[in-house]
Amino acid sequence: MSRRHVPTLSADSAVISTATGDSSNVSTDSSAVQTRARRTTALSTQSDIHDAILHPGNVRINVRGAFIVDDTNSEPSTPRSEDYEHDPHEIRLPHHTEVVSHIAVDIGGSLAKLVYFTREPNSTSDGGRLNFVKFETDRIDSCIDFMRKLQADYQRNNGSKPEELCVMATGGGAFKYYDRIREALNVEVIREEEMECLIIGLDFFITEIPKEVFTYSEDSPMEFMDLPSQPPSIYPYLLVNIGSGVSMIKVSGPRQFERIGGTSLGGGTLWGLLSLLTGARNFDDMLKLAAKGDNSTVDLLVGDIYGGAYNKIGLKSTHIASSFGKVYKQKRVAEQEAEDGCNGPLKTHTPEQELVSGTSELPHPSSMFRPEDISRSLLYAVSNNIGQIAYLHAEKHNLPHIYFGGSFIGGHAQTMNTLSYAIRFWSKGSKQAYFLRHEGYLGSVGAFLKRQPRNWGRRNSFETGEKMRV
Amino acid sequence: MSRRHVPTLSADSAVISTATGDSSNVSTDSSAVQTRARRTTALSTQSDIHDAILHPGNVRINVRGAFIVDDTNSEPSTPRSEDYEHDPHEIRLPHHTEVVSHIAVDIGGSLAKLVYFTREPNSTSDGGRLNFVKFETDRIDSCIDFMRKLQADYQRNNGSKPEELCVMATGGGAFKYYDRIREALNVEVIREEEMECLIIGLDFFITEIPKEVFTYSEDSPMEFMDLPSQPPSIYPYLLVNIGSGVSMIKVSGPRQFERIGGTSLGGGTLWGLLSLLTGARNFDDMLKLAAKGDNSTVDLLVGDIYGGAYNKIGLKSTHIASSFGKVYKQKRVAEQEAEDGCNGPLKTHTPEQELVSGTSELPHPSSMFRPEDISRSLLYAVSNNIGQIAYLHAEKHNLPHIYFGGSFIGGHAQTMNTLSYAIRFWSKGSKQAYFLRHEGYLGSVGAFLKRQPRNWGRRNSFETGEKMRV
Repeated sequence: MSRRHVPTLSADSAVISTATGDSSNVSTDSSAVQTRARRTTALSTQSDIHDAILHPGNVRINVRGAFIVDDTNSEPSTPRSEDYEHDPHEIRLPHHTEVVSHIAVDIGGSLAKLVYFTREPNSTSDGGRLNFVKFETDRIDSCIDFMRKLQADYQRNNGSKPEELCVMATGGGAFKYYDRIREALNVEVIREEEMECLIIGLDFFITEIPKEVFTYSEDSPMEFMDLPSQPPSIYPYLLVNIGSGVSMIKVSGPRQFERIGGTSLGGGTLWGLLSLLTGARNFDDMLKLAAKGDNSTVDLLVGDIYGGAYNKIGLKSTHIASSFGKVYKQKRVAEQEAEDGCNGPLKTHTPEQELVSGTSELPHPSSMFRPEDISRSLLYAVSNNIGQIAYLHAEKHNLPHIYFGGSFIGGHAQTMNTLSYAIRFWSKGSKQAYFLRHEGYLGSVGAFLKRQPRNWGRRNSFETGEKMRV
Repeated sequence: MSRRHVPTLSADSAVISTATGDSSNVSTDSSAVQTRARRTTALSTQSDIHDAILHPGNVRINVRGAFIVDDTNSEPSTPRSEDYEHDPHEIRLPHHTEVVSHIAVDIGGSLAKLVYFTREPNSTSDGGRLNFVKFETDRIDSCIDFMRKLQADYQRNNGSKPEELCVMATGGGAFKYYDRIREALNVEVIREEEMECLIIGLDFFITEIPKEVFTYSEDSPMEFMDLPSQPPSIYPYLLVNIGSGVSMIKVSGPRQFERIGGTSLGGGTLWGLLSLLTGARNFDDMLKLAAKGDNSTVDLLVGDIYGGAYNKIGLKSTHIASSFGKVYKQKRVAEQEAEDGCNGPLKTHTPEQELVSGTSELPHPSSMFRPEDISRSLLYAVSNNIGQIAYLHAEKHNLPHIYFGGSFIGGHAQTMNTLSYAIRFWSKGSKQAYFLRHEGYLGSVGAFLKRQPRNWGRRNSFETGEKMRV
């Protein structure tokens, strides 16, 4: 990653005078060196802090030259913990020098995603890093504790009062936990509209961050997209945001968007059903199970019905005709054999005589089927379904690009492969699925960047929000 | 139901000379009485049988004046059995007098649906009835036994050899069980293309059978549609056929159709998952559970995330944001409490240390959640999803009417209500769902009628199939 020129800083302000992407205001290398040398003192002047207090959250983040830190050997700046997961792919902002007086959190139905800026400890270089940490929403208190630690760090580094840090919050939890966060931290909590944040975050990732957006296929996993040469060319597009549920958002231009659909069959459905059906007790385990599974033991395939392909309509024999379509039958047969002895006549129900029973009198039902196979089948079912509905919406609204965001994907190969396959299958190869390395942090990054002034940034990706539609 | 005039029969043939719906060829009442008197003998002449042998399945079914027998007190002509379910809503064909030398069966992934014609025992009236009987496909042998009994009856009544009855078969099982049926019955099995049969059956029901097609809403369940005054006005339409899986078929005209989509999340998914998750061991019990359930204990609602409605995008607080979205959380909390004691710190996973276990060490997981609530949630999830994908296809192809067929619906109020609601919700009230009383028998009725000659029937609903597309 080549280092870029650093703009001159004025003596009494850390605010970069302009950063519109042309080179007219960039400094010489010598001034850059000068800047680095005085960073830790000059940038924390009282006037910077005063500015941050007057306009909480209204700090300009300089995203010029931002890149993903790919040094996976470097430990994240937080200690390992059971309470959260720190994404190792921090984003370095080499030119951001201003004091950042806010953190941002996106609290969804299952996960709370936190984004915050840190200077690099023991480093003499300019800039700093965006950090990405996630918590489960039902342990929101861990998240609030974490924010309290950030607040203490901020106070220690900048000498300000605790209330001078502000929290940008989005997602449903920004409303639900509003009072709790405000009281716990004794700070201002600024709530931001969820979908607007998603879009701001996604636009940032597409437009500003190299090696962020990629396509996925088994042959060529993670093929990175170039940054767009003409940012407006990225519109219109479809964002499919998969969290507990799924939202589909049509984006026509910067901050011009509309929720055009969604489905309740999302990550929460997969996790919920798999936690009932398998012994797996967390997402990672479920995905590990799915990776080892064979869905053909539980799914009814075209070949199972037809004894081969259904050529007339072009369905392969391995095409899934019915997800979990084999389970009911096989379970019935096993139960009947257990009741009647293996060779007895198959006795079936008489609805009138049978009590509707609330609990099975049989052994744990899933013991008949491998948890691996159940996991894979359900992962396929949910991912395929999302892919199909996404395609139908993209086609209806004539949206050439489909981006998948949200924590459901979690960088999991099989999930991305299924979503990619579904888009290719339904669009007959005319559309492609795009993924992001920070797919779970669109909303929180959007909230973090939200207060960007106009025309900030290298590539004009954060322009006017006047025409926003919701 | 008023009785209609009966056409004259020629002495040497049971074939009605014309039945195009005009009254020019109808007989006087006295000849009708004459006809009735000699029916049982005159119609079973050797020449009729010879005709049926030469053209197996090629018998003209006179559908003029057909109606549903609504006398639910009258027992079906078959004895009650655990092996099958005889639909009490037989269809009376008051003008069909010819020998019928075929039966029809549609063998799907879960159910085999049989249609056959019988004279009315101990009745002196003309015509006869279409009977509808279904079997579970994994008990195909019961179905074959049943067909053998029909064959014996046919032989007894008509004095012909066993091979003179023929079986029209459709659905995937027509291929899979082809040899088995042929060998067991020692008859010709004529296989018919599944989707063509579905469409022929549906066109028949829409066009010929009064009180067959209806809309459903909680306020006004079963509002019957009038028969179309201009049959071609029924096109184009979308058929959503829900069996184990779901097929969506665009129908542009008589026998002009194309499969435009489908989903693997169908009846098999609901039945399979519910058989794993609840104690219910048959479809009826599952639906009874669902009727008593409250999905809000397992589904994550908009109100659970936002603490109220998400007004900006018009989602009510009771809108389902994530199906089963509460399960994972609640299960985790309960497990952690069980491990740590109720007031201990919440200990969570460390993926590295934890074995991916295939069986739960905990009590039966679904004991935490009521089977009623799980059933309702899954019924909602599957039905809503089908409704949404159906709407998207109907809109994409500009199809004003959406008919739901297939055994999944089973006349179940909640299923129809959810499908109707989904179509109204997604189409913003511009489209409606239509249901059928014989929704499970489209394919088998289509196979039964398939060999109809052109221009047969009262309303010209069985015209040319030249332009068929698959």
